[in-house]
Amino acid sequence: MTTTWDFGVSHELDLVERRIRESLVSEEPLLTEIAEYVIAAGGKRIRPTVTLLAFKSVGGKAVGRAVDIAAALELIHSASLIHDDINDGGTERRGRPAAYLKYGMQEALVTGDFLFTKAFRIGGKFDEDIVDMTALVATALAEGEIRQKRHLGDVDMDREEYLNIVTRKTAMPMATGARVGALLGEGSVAQIDAAGIYGRNLGIAFQIVDDVLDVVGDASTLGKRPGMDIKEGNVTILAIHALEDGSVSDRSELIRILRKRSKDWGEVRSALRMIQESGAVEKALADARSYGDRAVKALEGLPDVEARSKLRDLVKFVLSRQT
Amino acid sequence: MTTTWDFGVSHELDLVERRIRESLVSEEPLLTEIAEYVIAAGGKRIRPTVTLLAFKSVGGKAVGRAVDIAAALELIHSASLIHDDINDGGTERRGRPAAYLKYGMQEALVTGDFLFTKAFRIGGKFDEDIVDMTALVATALAEGEIRQKRHLGDVDMDREEYLNIVTRKTAMPMATGARVGALLGEGSVAQIDAAGIYGRNLGIAFQIVDDVLDVVGDASTLGKRPGMDIKEGNVTILAIHALEDGSVSDRSELIRILRKRSKDWGEVRSALRMIQESGAVEKALADARSYGDRAVKALEGLPDVEARSKLRDLVKFVLSRQT
Repeated sequence: MTTTWDFGVSHELDLVERRIRESLVSEEPLLTEIAEYVIAAGGKRIRPTVTLLAFKSVGGKAVGRAVDIAAALELIHSASLIHDDINDGGTERRGRPAAYLKYGMQEALVTGDFLFTKAFRIGGKFDEDIVDMTALVATALAEGEIRQKRHLGDVDMDREEYLNIVTRKTAMPMATGARVGALLGEGSVAQIDAAGIYGRNLGIAFQIVDDVLDVVGDASTLGKRPGMDIKEGNVTILAIHALEDGSVSDRSELIRILRKRSKDWGEVRSALRMIQESGAVEKALADARSYGDRAVKALEGLPDVEARSKLRDLVKFVLSRQT
Repeated sequence: MTTTWDFGVSHELDLVERRIRESLVSEEPLLTEIAEYVIAAGGKRIRPTVTLLAFKSVGGKAVGRAVDIAAALELIHSASLIHDDINDGGTERRGRPAAYLKYGMQEALVTGDFLFTKAFRIGGKFDEDIVDMTALVATALAEGEIRQKRHLGDVDMDREEYLNIVTRKTAMPMATGARVGALLGEGSVAQIDAAGIYGRNLGIAFQIVDDVLDVVGDASTLGKRPGMDIKEGNVTILAIHALEDGSVSDRSELIRILRKRSKDWGEVRSALRMIQESGAVEKALADARSYGDRAVKALEGLPDVEARSKLRDLVKFVLSRQT
């Protein structure tokens, strides 16, 4: 979190952090080292923040179990980041080399598995419904990754398919974190649903902003080179906007670059410029705000307490983030 | 299983198979396809057989939960096989190309994750102690793989370190399967321990025979090219024997080949020949029989029922297998 934002759960986030760290102890020090490297690069801890605030918003008191499940979900998230970086050839994350580049592909792959097992060791202690929800998050991440890969360079991808992938990779995990938080806080069914709707829409907004930053961000604040989505062939909502409404200056050239399996950075920059000039950034940001509004709207289903206003702040934070 | 062996649990194994298959359904058909491909190549189903027989040997009746945990452990095993093949560059498994060669590295990697999540969805429904044991199997597999990789080409590896790796990768998973089987069958603490000791020793015997087959087996029955351990740099008990007792004809040449990062097949064949001629095969088989004897001895702690005699047969099967 940046120092200017305070969501009122820094103590609980410390507990999550501690829970994660203690679970990473291994007789193989290298596994612990790589795992800690990846966890440290995990960044903003938005996912656990959502879970903890959802828990508190419905009046949850003993925070231990919410801390546990937040830790489990963050471990799953980190595991998928390691494997995604291997899969996508991502070279940097938060200004540091991807784990597979620093430690080796095989070591990184195994560390991802290790993180999964640690997540499930924590998550498996819960009741069957929560175990199911947690396992389904991990399944959705795998399905989302396969689906994304299936659509690499697919210039016919539409908004619906984009949302399908985003749902699996980002929105559903956040929705589940929110739902489980409210469930553990002993919220009503309606409150749990409201938290889930909040999480899902926050997740979509988060991902769209991520996609925008990949087009307009700069390497120093982003912690990675911009244009990676285009480089890797991910057709995001920005490319969809640019292609769909005919606003891009040279549609066939953008299509040619997006479709190309191996692009040089000159082509990536050219595609970025076309997308920027098409007005897609503004449209995508409007989309993100719209999902943010839906997230805020869903908060009406939660009690009017401080944690709820923090959840509202979190939407603003997600929409305004530059990194 | 070959047709000549019958361990009396073919019906229950069918249930395990069904439980596995139904868990592989995904909205991403490719994930299901790759997962089924790997499961089908999984082979002899020794792990579930151990779990089911341990369950029955202590008088377990309603087999559903033993079927579930056997399915979960087999899914974890399959997940680790996919990732190990990626890591080790294994090209064949049971006569078919490794999943990552047939379907692509990224697809295989994600399928491994998918199998882990399905395992934990099943395994997570059990009580905390069984969840812990199941998660620890998966952790041990990751730790074993890292440890094995750390010792690639390590000609100073000794028997103790070899057993440490084998324990994590093979013996501990089988021991856990046996323990959980006896636990679910409501065996006594002593019976559960006996089952665990049986499983551990069976697992070590199994792995030693595996290592022997890699030296003396032929490609047609083995389903993969022999010599892969040497090719990949795994120093097995056979190499340890050959190097330790000075029986190998040209110790420095064997060391040179084992240490070499990239070996051609001529060198692999040369190393195989030296190991064969050193008497290491016979010594390793004696080791395997010794662990098999310990497994059989442990069976004294289980009731004298048919399932127990089948567990004894299983030791014979493991020691005599040619594939």
